[in-house]
Formats: sequence, structure tokens, C-alpha cells
Amino acid sequence: MGKLFDVILLLVIVLSIALVMLESIDSLNQRYYWQFYIAEWVITFFFTIEYILRIIAINKPKKYIFSFYGIVDFLSTIPTYVSIIAGGHNMLFAIRALRLLRVFRILKITRYIGESNRLLLALRNSRAKILIFLYTVIIICIIMGTLMYLVEGEAGGFDNIPLGIYWAIVTLTTVGFGDIHPITPLGRFIASIIMVTGYGIIAVPTGIVSAEYTKYFKQPTIPTNTQVCPHCNETKHLDKAEFCHNCGSKLNE
Amino acid sequence: MGKLFDVILLLVIVLSIALVMLESIDSLNQRYYWQFYIAEWVITFFFTIEYILRIIAINKPKKYIFSFYGIVDFLSTIPTYVSIIAGGHNMLFAIRALRLLRVFRILKITRYIGESNRLLLALRNSRAKILIFLYTVIIICIIMGTLMYLVEGEAGGFDNIPLGIYWAIVTLTTVGFGDIHPITPLGRFIASIIMVTGYGIIAVPTGIVSAEYTKYFKQPTIPTNTQVCPHCNETKHLDKAEFCHNCGSKLNE
Amino acid sequence: MGKLFDVILLLVIVLSIALVMLESIDSLNQRYYWQFYIAEWVITFFFTIEYILRIIAINKPKKYIFSFYGIVDFLSTIPTYVSIIAGGHNMLFAIRALRLLRVFRILKITRYIGESNRLLLALRNSRAKILIFLYTVIIICIIMGTLMYLVEGEAGGFDNIPLGIYWAIVTLTTVGFGDIHPITPLGRFIASIIMVTGYGIIAVPTGIVSAEYTKYFKQPTIPTNTQVCPHCNETKHLDKAEFCHNCGSKLNE
Amino acid sequence: MGKLFDVILLLVIVLSIALVMLESIDSLNQRYYWQFYIAEWVITFFFTIEYILRIIAINKPKKYIFSFYGIVDFLSTIPTYVSIIAGGHNMLFAIRALRLLRVFRILKITRYIGESNRLLLALRNSRAKILIFLYTVIIICIIMGTLMYLVEGEAGGFDNIPLGIYWAIVTLTTVGFGDIHPITPLGRFIASIIMVTGYGIIAVPTGIVSAEYTKYFKQPTIPTNTQVCPHCNETKHLDKAEFCHNCGSKLNE
Repeated sequence: MGKLFDVILLLVIVLSIALVMLESIDSLNQRYYWQFYIAEWVITFFFTIEYILRIIAINKPKKYIFSFYGIVDFLSTIPTYVSIIAGGHNMLFAIRALRLLRVFRILKITRYIGESNRLLLALRNSRAKILIFLYTVIIICIIMGTLMYLVEGEAGGFDNIPLGIYWAIVTLTTVGFGDIHPITPLGRFIASIIMVTGYGIIAVPTGIVSAEYTKYFKQPTIPTNTQVCPHCNETKHLDKAEFCHNCGSKLNE
Repeated sequence: MGKLFDVILLLVIVLSIALVMLESIDSLNQRYYWQFYIAEWVITFFFTIEYILRIIAINKPKKYIFSFYGIVDFLSTIPTYVSIIAGGHNMLFAIRALRLLRVFRILKITRYIGESNRLLLALRNSRAKILIFLYTVIIICIIMGTLMYLVEGEAGGFDNIPLGIYWAIVTLTTVGFGDIHPITPLGRFIASIIMVTGYGIIAVPTGIVSAEYTKYFKQPTIPTNTQVCPHCNETKHLDKAEFCHNCGSKLNE
Repeated sequence: MGKLFDVILLLVIVLSIALVMLESIDSLNQRYYWQFYIAEWVITFFFTIEYILRIIAINKPKKYIFSFYGIVDFLSTIPTYVSIIAGGHNMLFAIRALRLLRVFRILKITRYIGESNRLLLALRNSRAKILIFLYTVIIICIIMGTLMYLVEGEAGGFDNIPLGIYWAIVTLTTVGFGDIHPITPLGRFIASIIMVTGYGIIAVPTGIVSAEYTKYFKQPTIPTNTQVCPHCNETKHLDKAEFCHNCGSKLNE
Repeated sequence: MGKLFDVILLLVIVLSIALVMLESIDSLNQRYYWQFYIAEWVITFFFTIEYILRIIAINKPKKYIFSFYGIVDFLSTIPTYVSIIAGGHNMLFAIRALRLLRVFRILKITRYIGESNRLLLALRNSRAKILIFLYTVIIICIIMGTLMYLVEGEAGGFDNIPLGIYWAIVTLTTVGFGDIHPITPLGRFIASIIMVTGYGIIAVPTGIVSAEYTKYFKQPTIPTNTQVCPHCNETKHLDKAEFCHNCGSKLNE
């Protein structure tokens, strides 16, 4: 029963997100305005009932209401109701923004995937190293972006330093939109250095995560503990050891 | 004999694909229309004969006909014949579409490469993790694409949410076409975050596959221990050793 | 006390960099000219006092003054003073350039992160290999850039060889601005080869750093051997074990 | 002496390449035509003398002349001489092409770097797997490029199938020039799939090279050989073993 409800809920969430997406396309919104309007209300009703049922069913409703998913559930229900009260067309955009919070709903699906936890764990372990790496990347981008602003100036589209830094990030991460690009020989030379740097240092986070992962795959090593032998003070006995491997006396007597 | 036929078949497949490519170039198609037409029919004839011979030669023709390669063989033979019946120029494009199925033919070459199976195996083992990774990537793109639609709006080319999501995918995967790109400071700031994220998380699939592969490469090392020979004090004997490899005296007496 | 001062100093550095960035935006600079001017002088004063205090406090002031950070501290203090002496608007740009040296100040933050040293160590160990890799990349770019200049010529925007090499770097590193791009079939074919090469050889630096990192992560496993206890037939004793960890009887009698 | 000559030769090679690059820049070529002309002849003279000296000094001149570097040396000397005989301005471009072969000269520097051999070895070992990977990448590009030609058509710039394949390569390798890009919703959806695929499968070559490299870094395993004990037929003795570890009899008597 609970599982069936979960699957239906999931489908409604996906549908509600698809609806928000389709509504944002002007041509579709003009043609199917009423269909969207009705679907909007049906989904809002479903979410409202689900929200109320959850509060009733749970022992500690307060804990749920103020939890992350509780707030997401509430915020993904309310926009349609607000649209009646606020009514006017002027506030349409702001209401739409609230509506879009429902997108976060899809995060709920993550709950159904157990393996993702292990992935997160690996990322969490290498978090400190990745943060230092990102910090280095940002420092490089600030210095290089400032340099490009001085070298290229407004002619090449580098109107100010933040724009130069934005361009440096676009370049270092090998995205390369091409809306801003150097035109002077010196600017192009510096750009080349940034590109080769970006191409080379991508190896660092990859290396970190690879090493982190390889560790997980390693065959289990024989576990030892810190028990101390009462006779000879020998440490590092095997977990299953009952006698000291050094003097042969009984452990844990 | 069978091997020679295979090589010829392979060459004809490659030729037929090259033909479809060259036909699609307008200037070449106008100049060499008849040459292409004749080549088309010669190849079709070859494929037809091959298809019929296969059905005759094989014990269970039904199994072949409805297998993946059987259907590909049939579909890559038929378009030229259909073009006579359908005839008119109006349906030319649809016929061309059928013709192009022949492209899948090249997949047959894969059959000749044995090593690709091992590569597929490694990918299959890390499939679950890569799928979770791609799911996370898509969620990030949906949220970021929606955000950019709200922040940039139609001025920056983010006409609707699906377009915003498309842009987020283009950016996160570090492709960066540049047809759509942010122009407001806030949009550029969010874009920077997406780019650095994309640059950082590419480490995850790489790490997974690396670890998977490293596992395969591990050669079993011959285990030795630190036993000391009572005669000559030689160390590092093989685990299974009962006699010293240096002086030949009995170990563990 | 010293820690509090460090945190304040850090904040002032970040503020001063933010100030330089905001000043570079024309619209902001015109509106808030005086606010920026005052903030500029306040920060310069703070840096001046810090610089003088450091020289007084340190035992060997000469060593500090000529150290890397000593020079950075001096150069990040001086530009505002120079702007009074130089005065005129003609030299404004050069002064600005000096001012921007303060950006390097942010490098000081690195001092507070201990872990970055380990990261640098890993990079330094694979430095030789990464340099050879970069040398190979540059050679490929020189050859391919020259080839593209000959094939595409000025029509495709490949005006001269350095520009061709610049384009080859943009392409091989998968940045792809799109300001210069091949238009002839042969040029596009060569471009395809460069792109696939760039896509393939990024594996090399990643592989090097990964392997370097994996080495660091290896925890020393406690070595065991396959000795069998003469009493209880227990196996997998520690290498240094002299008594059975299970029954306590002497091993190797 | 020989080392000094090598360093001078290296400098002249780098100079000659720089000269070719600068000559290709129109504005510089017009201003410094005579300086370039003289430098050209000086370098050609140096190369000619080096070539003749090498033939005289080496024992087997024939082997050198027809070796790879022998041919490169010859071809990098001849263009300037050819330019006198061919003379006219019409053949200027073809002569330039010959001149550019000198770029390959820089490859000689590689000879001075010993470590690059180990890098090549690692790449050579994973060659087969990388080739299969590249083959798969090209197949995906052919299929996807054809699909995009059918979906987008000439409106989106996908004028013919080879162009579609070129675009697919540009996209899958995450280069993304942006000269050709999809404009229909379906085209953008397919493009998204290609981009995510490209972003995901880059992990494969990286994983292969990483694993290959990790193998090299492994601590030396204790080497055994295939000696057979004359008494008990036991194999896999340690390399340094003089007595059988199984029965204690002398090996290699």
C-alpha cells in the first residue's frame, strides 16, 4: 500500500515539474491555457491532501513541518493558492517563482536510491581536498581575470574585472562560450596559458576521487585492535585473538 | 573462405555508409547523381544476396530474421526497393531516413573485436553508480536551468525553462556552444557556479571507472612471510615453503 | 590576539580586492567615486600600519622586506601614495595596474590551510611527467596549428601561424570559443582529429595524478602469514607472532 | 663539446620555427622582409653544414640519410634552396609549405628527455583499449550526426551528414565551437544526450590510463622464476633461491 502511494506520488511530482516547464513555453501556454490551469489545480489538490495526511499520520508533526522535506512540501503546495489571493497579473512572475520551488520535489526520488549514500560518502571524504582545489581555481581565475582586463581592455569585451574573472572561469573550466574572447596577441597568449592550465589541473580532483574510490574497492584488510596484553603490554592483536601472540597469556581475563 | 567474405562484407558496409554521406552533400549529389544511383543499386543487390544466403545457410532462419542484426540487415536492404514503389519526390526525405538505418550496419564490425567485451564488462559493473551520477547531473541541470530562466529571462535568450535546462546541460558538461549565454551579473555568477561544479564533478565518473579498472589489473602477488631459517638466518620465504631456499635446511622444526 | 589580528587582516584583504573589482565597473565608479576614494585610503592606511608594525616586530626585518610576502605587502601599499605624486589622469591606468598587485594578497590565505601542502607535494612529485605531457601538447598544437593555417588560410580566420596555434590550443583543450573555426571540409576533418586527440589524451595527466594519489592513500596493512598453530590449527597469525592468538600455545616449536 | 653543439642546434631549431611563425604574420613580414630574408639564409646555412657534417661523421651515412630524422633534416634544409630555383611568386605558398616541415625538427628535443619513454610505454600498453574506445566514439558520432542531419536539417546549419558528424564530434568531445548548433526542441534534446554521454564516457580512457599507471607505481613484488626442482618438481622458486623450498634439495646442480 505504502509503496503504491510512493510510486503515485513520484509520478505526480514528475508531472507537476513537466507542467511548470511546459507552462514556461509561451506558445504552448497560450494554446493550452485552460488545460494547464485545470492540471495545476488537480496537482495542487493532490499535494494538499498528501501534506495534510502526512501531518495526521506522523507522531511528531512539528518535527516534520519544520524538516527540510516538510518545508519543501509546504512551499510546493502554496503557490497556486497564493495566485488567487494575489490575483492581479502584475505579480504573476513572483508567483511563478514560488511555483517553481516544486522542482525541488524531485529530490525526493533520491530517497529511493540507497547507493547514492555511498557515493556521497566518498565525495564527503575528499571534500576538504576538493575545496582547497576549488579555492586554488578561484584564486587563479581572479588573478588571470584581472590580468586579462588590463591586457585586453574594453575592446576585447573585458569591460571590468568581474567580467574578466567570469571569462577566466569560462575558459579554465574549458566551457568556452565565446561571447567574450581575447583579440590581442598578448591576450591570446595569456588565454593559452589559462587553457593549458585548466586542461592540466582537471587531473587533480579526478585523482583525489579516484584514489578515494580505489580505497573502497580494496579487499578487506585483517582487522586489528588496540587491546593491550596484561602480561607483556604487546598491542595490535587480531580482533578475534583470545591469547597474546607474543607471550601466550590469555587476553581479556 | 568465410573470413574473406566477412572482409568483403565489411568493406561494402563502409562503402555504403560513405555513399549515404556523400549523397547528403548537395553539390556532389547534383554532379554525380547517376554514379551514386548505380552504386546504390549495386550495394543494395549485394546486401539482398547476402540476406537471402544467410537465411538459406542458417539452421534456424526464424531466429536470425527476428534477431537484432537480422532486422538491421533487412532494414538496410529495403529502402532502395521502397524508393521505386513510393517513387514520387515528395516522399524522398522519408525514404532517405530509412536508407540511413544502414549506418547501424557498422556496428557489425564490433563483432570482430574481442577486447571490447572486457571494456563493456567494466562499464556494466559501474553502471549503477554512473546512473546515479547522471541522475544527480540532470537534477542539478533542472534546478539551475529553472533558476537561470528566472534570473536572465528572455533578454539573455533563456526563453523558457526547457531552454534553460538545455543551456545548463551545455554548460555543466563544459561544451559551451555560446548560442545562449548569460548577460546579467547575477546570471553570470550562477553560470560560474555551474561551470566550476561541472569541472569538479567530472571527477566522479572518472574515479568510479578508474577504481573499477584498477581492480582488473591487480596481478596476484606471490605471498612471502618473515620466517627466519634456523640455519642461515635467511628471511622472506614463500608462505608455503617448508625448506629454506638458501641452505636447504628444514624450516619450522 | 594574534589570531584575531589575522582574521581582521584577512577580511581587509578580501575587502580591498572587492573594492578594486567594483572600481573597475564604470557605472559603479561614477556613482560611488567618493565612497571608493575614502575606502581606498582607509585600507591603504591599515596596510601601511600593518607593514610598519611587521618590520618593528620581526627580529630580522631585512629578511622579511626582501621575502616574497614582504615585497607583496610593500607593493600592495604603495599605489595609493603614488597616485598623489603622479597625480595626472594620464598615468591613471599604470597606477591602477600597481594597485591590482594587491590581488596577490589573497594568496596569504593559503598560509592558513595546512592540507594544501600535501596536495602540492603530490603535484610536485608528478611535475616531471606533467611537464613532458604539456610539452607534447604544445608540440601537437604547433604542428596542427601550422597545418590548419596552410589548409584553411585567411578565409577561415586562420590569418597567421601563431593564430593557428592559438586555435589549436583552444580546440585541443576542449575550450572551443568559436571565434575562429574551420570552414573547409579538410580543415574540419583535421579539427576532428585534434578534438578526438584532446579528448583522449586528457586521460594522461589524470592517470598520473591518480596513480600518485593512490600511492599516498595506501594504509600500511598489517602483514600476516599462513603459519599453522601446532595445537589448534588456527592460521593467519601476525608475522611477528610467537604464540597462537587463539589457544596461546607456542608457535614454531 | 658535443653537448654544447646540441644546445646550439636546439636554439637554432627553436629560432627557425619562431621565424616561420613571424613570417606568417603579414604586418611583420612587410616591415621586416629583409631581416627575415637574411635570418632565413643564415639558418639554412647552419642546417646545411650540420647535415653535411653528420653524413661525414657517421659510420653508416646511408642508414642516417634514410632514417626518420635524416629525412626531416634534409627536408628542413631544402626549402630555401628550392625558393631560388622555383623563384616566381606563384609558387610561394607551396615553398612555404615545405619550409614548415622544419616544425618537425622540434621533435628532436624529445630525444633529450629520457622519462618520455616511460610515458609512451604506458600509453602503448593501453593502446588497444584506447583504440576500441575511439572506435566507439566515432560510431556514436556517425549515428548521432546522421540523426541530427535528419532532425535539424539545413535550417540549423546541418547541411549534410559529414557536417552533422563533425558537429557530433565537436559536441561529444565537449569542445562546442557554436558555429553549428541545434535550434529545434528535438535537436536540442538529442544534443543534450550527446553532451551527457560525452561528459560521462571521458571517464573510460582516463580509467584505463590511471589503472595502467597505478600498476607501474606498485612496489616491486618478490620475483619468482619457473625453475623446476629436480627432486620434487616444485616450481615458482624465488629468483635468488639455491635450494628447493619444498624438499630442501639443491637447485641447478
